[in-house]
Amino acid sequence: MLTISHRGTEMPASPIRKLVPYAEAAKKKGTKVYHLNIGQPDIETPPSIMDAVRQCKLPVLEYSHSAGNESYRRKLVEYYAKNNIHITHNDIIVTAGGSEAILFGFMACLDAGDEVIIPEPFYANYNGFAIQADVVVKPIRSNIETGFALPPIEDFEKAITPRTRAIVVCNPNNPTGYLYSRAEMETLKEIVLKHNLFLFADEAYREFCYNGEHTSAMHLTGAEQHVVLMDTISKRYSACGGRIGAFITKNKQVLDAAMKFAQARLSPPYFAQILGEAAVDLPDNYFDAIKAEYERRRNILVERLNAMPGVFCPNPGGAFYAMAKLPIDDCDAFCQWLLERFEHNGATLMLAPATGFYSTPGLGLQEVRLAYVLNTDAIHAAMDCLEAALKVYPGRKN
Amino acid sequence: MLTISHRGTEMPASPIRKLVPYAEAAKKKGTKVYHLNIGQPDIETPPSIMDAVRQCKLPVLEYSHSAGNESYRRKLVEYYAKNNIHITHNDIIVTAGGSEAILFGFMACLDAGDEVIIPEPFYANYNGFAIQADVVVKPIRSNIETGFALPPIEDFEKAITPRTRAIVVCNPNNPTGYLYSRAEMETLKEIVLKHNLFLFADEAYREFCYNGEHTSAMHLTGAEQHVVLMDTISKRYSACGGRIGAFITKNKQVLDAAMKFAQARLSPPYFAQILGEAAVDLPDNYFDAIKAEYERRRNILVERLNAMPGVFCPNPGGAFYAMAKLPIDDCDAFCQWLLERFEHNGATLMLAPATGFYSTPGLGLQEVRLAYVLNTDAIHAAMDCLEAALKVYPGRKN
Repeated sequence: MLTISHRGTEMPASPIRKLVPYAEAAKKKGTKVYHLNIGQPDIETPPSIMDAVRQCKLPVLEYSHSAGNESYRRKLVEYYAKNNIHITHNDIIVTAGGSEAILFGFMACLDAGDEVIIPEPFYANYNGFAIQADVVVKPIRSNIETGFALPPIEDFEKAITPRTRAIVVCNPNNPTGYLYSRAEMETLKEIVLKHNLFLFADEAYREFCYNGEHTSAMHLTGAEQHVVLMDTISKRYSACGGRIGAFITKNKQVLDAAMKFAQARLSPPYFAQILGEAAVDLPDNYFDAIKAEYERRRNILVERLNAMPGVFCPNPGGAFYAMAKLPIDDCDAFCQWLLERFEHNGATLMLAPATGFYSTPGLGLQEVRLAYVLNTDAIHAAMDCLEAALKVYPGRKN
Repeated sequence: MLTISHRGTEMPASPIRKLVPYAEAAKKKGTKVYHLNIGQPDIETPPSIMDAVRQCKLPVLEYSHSAGNESYRRKLVEYYAKNNIHITHNDIIVTAGGSEAILFGFMACLDAGDEVIIPEPFYANYNGFAIQADVVVKPIRSNIETGFALPPIEDFEKAITPRTRAIVVCNPNNPTGYLYSRAEMETLKEIVLKHNLFLFADEAYREFCYNGEHTSAMHLTGAEQHVVLMDTISKRYSACGGRIGAFITKNKQVLDAAMKFAQARLSPPYFAQILGEAAVDLPDNYFDAIKAEYERRRNILVERLNAMPGVFCPNPGGAFYAMAKLPIDDCDAFCQWLLERFEHNGATLMLAPATGFYSTPGLGLQEVRLAYVLNTDAIHAAMDCLEAALKVYPGRKN
């Protein structure tokens, strides 16, 4: 009997995947499902950047440079300069989404059995990339009580072993929406310098900061050789399907190593590089209306949640996610129950159980992630459902 | 001092990369360089399929399904049926190029330290994917004297150990252009059934067969659970930059495991899926003119090569590569010398040294790979250069 690999077995399925059949069944019986479970923005992709693709005149859809088209990389330099990140086009490898940038980072900087520290809850797919790279994730806990602030420096130091090679920071954070302060980023700098670690910075949501400024890991003076920025245009321009990201570092040795992984897969997707290049020329106020819209949604969501008895939702400073603690026994059971057994005015909602974002078994049982990627009317309707659901859920537990 | 990973160090650079600075320097001093070193076809991407992208009306460039858009997968079923490969859309995961399909195969079927047998010379990037997956490549030698036919069954059996999990076959072959016969494919089937191995079939050049029919690994009755097809539209439609491939298997366990890797990276690129979907509706005679053109080029190339004293080039049955044995001391030195020290009527040529395609050190020293991706005039001019070069190359050796 042929068998698959152990890593193929260990590889986690998407934490919400097991709920999909229940959502489909709910829709089949006519229930409206509000999807607060996914990070797919409903914001229109700017028509001008879609037009750049529509107008492309390539006679041959050739491989681009393995690091991405030079014209795109030069344009990205302008984008980053506007964000006070000063690099050259030679510091950039264009990747197939932020996903590939993360995988390149793990592969280029860590060997099998090496350890990476990540504050949990964290973006679930880091686990998948870690398994691909045979890297061990060492979670340290951030808490809903502090709004998921950076764990104290002692917690990092307790987790550091001779195999520790890197820390991952996602800022603003998915799934918590937490926006790390300048001081917290400086703390991370101190740790990586002291213990000689890489700092992998996932800044997919850089533009979506509502309370305060974004501090990029690339702003940390003196940590240039330690920082790898893993970026993507997916959320920034509502261009998730383009699969364009970037791997950026001033550490030449790391860049050269990552470049070999980039060469093996030949090139990043061409069309979305055209889109990304055009996006840098969007007017500087492009994000204003979008940020205002997300902030409106966040405010409604957080206010509605905290008005429900037994519910606590810290106010997230960025991204478009919120984590809430609910008066329930088990978030997986609850999320399934919402789809399978509940409706309110012909509707229900789909949430992401927080257990999928924690690495430590047993954590996050009472928490869920909500993505505010729906318009305010839909968010109100979804909150009406949740409020009603919590009143009748048989596993209610305060 | 921060250091990169061992695998980052071990990861091979592209075998032609070290020659690129010499090609650039040659061009800078005004020498025309004929590029026979790369597999980037000069054939126009069919305008109708580029138009399908140009006309796309998506308001939001959303993630596609992690397995690829269902409409594209259903269309692919039609394409494969025309090639006598009978699958359903649920047997397909759309990937970011053939590259990602190969990586998914290694990851889903092999664990660290497991072995994969590949007849050498082979596509150099298999080494890169093997290092990423921490898989050991066991080469068995195919010979230029036999035109790189499948090595005898005993050679496979000698190479098989308890860690052997798979065989890779690239048909028609890159870099050799060899087209495996039905009988050879049946031999592979026999081996994988007897020893319980996976058969990874890279069929990127399926349409480009000049001497005889293509036998797909998916045609091997009784081996359905063993075969994984790793495909790409890059060469088929001259759409290398799209980065769209496919991972196809009837082995449900393998597909489910690969699907988890696909979910981790969220989705394949969207735009080129539109292009790939449109491509299935190209007229059935679309490949006729292209094949005729490649065959013309091949015939000129092979005839010119074999007319040069001391040169031997077996006639490749498919793809758009030929391997030639030259009367030289060292192909790496020769290819560099061509760019650095030689010109003929203001021109020279760039070739791929065969050493990069052999895994066993010391093999392929007198061989080079030539990609006939230039028009016939350019091929003649390049062959004029090569002929002149071999007369004066200081490292000539018969």
